[in-house]
Amino acid sequence: MKTLTVDLGNRSYPIHIGQHLLTQVALLQPHIVSKQVLIVSNDTVAPLYLDTLLSTLSAYDCYTVVLKDGEQYKSLDTLNEIFDAALNNKLNRQLTMIALGGGVIGDMAGFAASCYQRGVNFIQIPTTLLAQVDSSVGGKTAVNHPLGKNMIGAFYQPRCVLADISTLDTLPARELSAGLAEVIKYGVIRDVAFFEWLEQNMDALLARNSEVLGYAIERSCRNKAEIVEQDEHERGMRALLNLGHTFGHAIETACGYGVWLHGEAVAAGMSMAAELSYRLGWLPANDMQRIIGLIARAKLPVKPPATMSAAQFMDLMAVDKKVEDGKVRFVLLKALGDAVTTADFDAAIFEQFLNESCGA
Amino acid sequence: MKTLTVDLGNRSYPIHIGQHLLTQVALLQPHIVSKQVLIVSNDTVAPLYLDTLLSTLSAYDCYTVVLKDGEQYKSLDTLNEIFDAALNNKLNRQLTMIALGGGVIGDMAGFAASCYQRGVNFIQIPTTLLAQVDSSVGGKTAVNHPLGKNMIGAFYQPRCVLADISTLDTLPARELSAGLAEVIKYGVIRDVAFFEWLEQNMDALLARNSEVLGYAIERSCRNKAEIVEQDEHERGMRALLNLGHTFGHAIETACGYGVWLHGEAVAAGMSMAAELSYRLGWLPANDMQRIIGLIARAKLPVKPPATMSAAQFMDLMAVDKKVEDGKVRFVLLKALGDAVTTADFDAAIFEQFLNESCGA
Repeated sequence: MKTLTVDLGNRSYPIHIGQHLLTQVALLQPHIVSKQVLIVSNDTVAPLYLDTLLSTLSAYDCYTVVLKDGEQYKSLDTLNEIFDAALNNKLNRQLTMIALGGGVIGDMAGFAASCYQRGVNFIQIPTTLLAQVDSSVGGKTAVNHPLGKNMIGAFYQPRCVLADISTLDTLPARELSAGLAEVIKYGVIRDVAFFEWLEQNMDALLARNSEVLGYAIERSCRNKAEIVEQDEHERGMRALLNLGHTFGHAIETACGYGVWLHGEAVAAGMSMAAELSYRLGWLPANDMQRIIGLIARAKLPVKPPATMSAAQFMDLMAVDKKVEDGKVRFVLLKALGDAVTTADFDAAIFEQFLNESCGA
Repeated sequence: MKTLTVDLGNRSYPIHIGQHLLTQVALLQPHIVSKQVLIVSNDTVAPLYLDTLLSTLSAYDCYTVVLKDGEQYKSLDTLNEIFDAALNNKLNRQLTMIALGGGVIGDMAGFAASCYQRGVNFIQIPTTLLAQVDSSVGGKTAVNHPLGKNMIGAFYQPRCVLADISTLDTLPARELSAGLAEVIKYGVIRDVAFFEWLEQNMDALLARNSEVLGYAIERSCRNKAEIVEQDEHERGMRALLNLGHTFGHAIETACGYGVWLHGEAVAAGMSMAAELSYRLGWLPANDMQRIIGLIARAKLPVKPPATMSAAQFMDLMAVDKKVEDGKVRFVLLKALGDAVTTADFDAAIFEQFLNESCGA
């Protein structure tokens, strides 16, 4: 087992990465404040891992709430099911809430923990690659609104993250690829050596070699922790983690939440950001090709959905959290490993790019 | 105009108290970050003061959302109306949200501001006495759940509080009294000199003498600010502000939100806490009589609703935020001006008191 620390002063917390961590009560115990535990999971993950976790936590008074699986359920209404479960069981402010599932469960349980009785203890147990390398670390929590992704949420750090690599054994191939999108992202925005390692190890990752997967998770978490430590509330450099996300969120909202997986939308968005950076004359052609090539090798989309128009992109991106003073800000690339957040680019080139990308 | 400061490091903010502050753009300007302003009000207050505020803010791009008035609308569903308004108008993270109304509007707009795009700028313009002396200061925000008061919320400080005493001219007498409940509370828990001043000035307060009202607001805010500065997240002494609130929240939930005003429920709750403290042998009879006497002079209830049973109280209080390790913690009184938070009292006396209070 490897343990990293996210260093945020009195809100610092460990990320444990390894095999069969779900059975190790000693990893969870220091982070649970009273007997009360509420486990939030979904109807895909609960049948696989809930019993294991319950028996690990048999010394506690465990309650569970099992939500429907899918991004389309990441809503205020579903959030309320968590509050209902907590209140029906009279759970109090000393409660510890545990997310057992992928990014959707982590985001919803984390947001619920941040606002139940104005904040209770929270632990992340991510069971998808995407959640293990990205969403479970850093304290971003949220639900979607019909008009925009992650529009309602909070910054709320967990007390502990348990990334049990064994849970990836049951992950559908499509979800594995979706997770690789965020892994590739770290290489593209700030870690060229890791990008090169990914080029060499993509086949082993897709084959779920556990040693290779473990290293990819650890290095991804380390990259994420370094960024979050410097800019917890995204006033500056943390925004670089949104490479591909402005395009990606528009894709997810336009197609209907859950039709494209988040990682798939981010993959297409990163490819678009790379191509736009190239067209602006910022990114060498070879770097663009390597980025798009690696995304494709991870069995991820590199183009937006055929059904989306340029106008739809513009409309949906106008409400993105990266908008300032009426200008959409994008994360773009100056080179492989060198990303910038900017609204300062040639609008004509951007429009032409968007029109051609959408085939409109 | 008087200005107090709530000293919370880089989240410090001013409370301005005075006449006709709604027309003074210079008080708001320093706390608005971009052109975008969303004013949240209700259908009672908006017809009275929204136009004034809009013309004060004519240099900004102001959007408004007018909610239904009443505690029964302090819900996740109503909260969503604020998000709808913000997203339909494509308002971004540089938005400033302004609450124009009483405690319900302040609590909802504050919670909405805390989670819209994970947190936007927030200003409180309280227009009821209760909001001016209590709920607009200190950063507690929340909505109700059918199973409990203020169960879903956040600690989120405003950038500025504008307590315009002129807005109290239109306040119904019942709402004025409800506000006086929280004013009296400061005297009871920590400020005996203020309690004595209130005994001397209750008639002038009920007659809305603006100088006397102004002083009561200022001294209440000063008491609240001192407490919040020492214990922002209610890990200790801030809980003393909940005198009467554990009983009070049970009353509000049992009767249906909005049937009893919050201040009325707190008034009955404070009277109950005083009587319980007396029965436990902690509070002298004379102090209890002075407390209940002053509450009655403010035209507030001093008994729980006749419809409530002791069993109903016990059931509803079991989910209160003041519960720890299965024991309900109450704010009780050792003397006038000396409150304690405790679960350590004679359970038999408590049960007898509750049974007799409820006439069951």
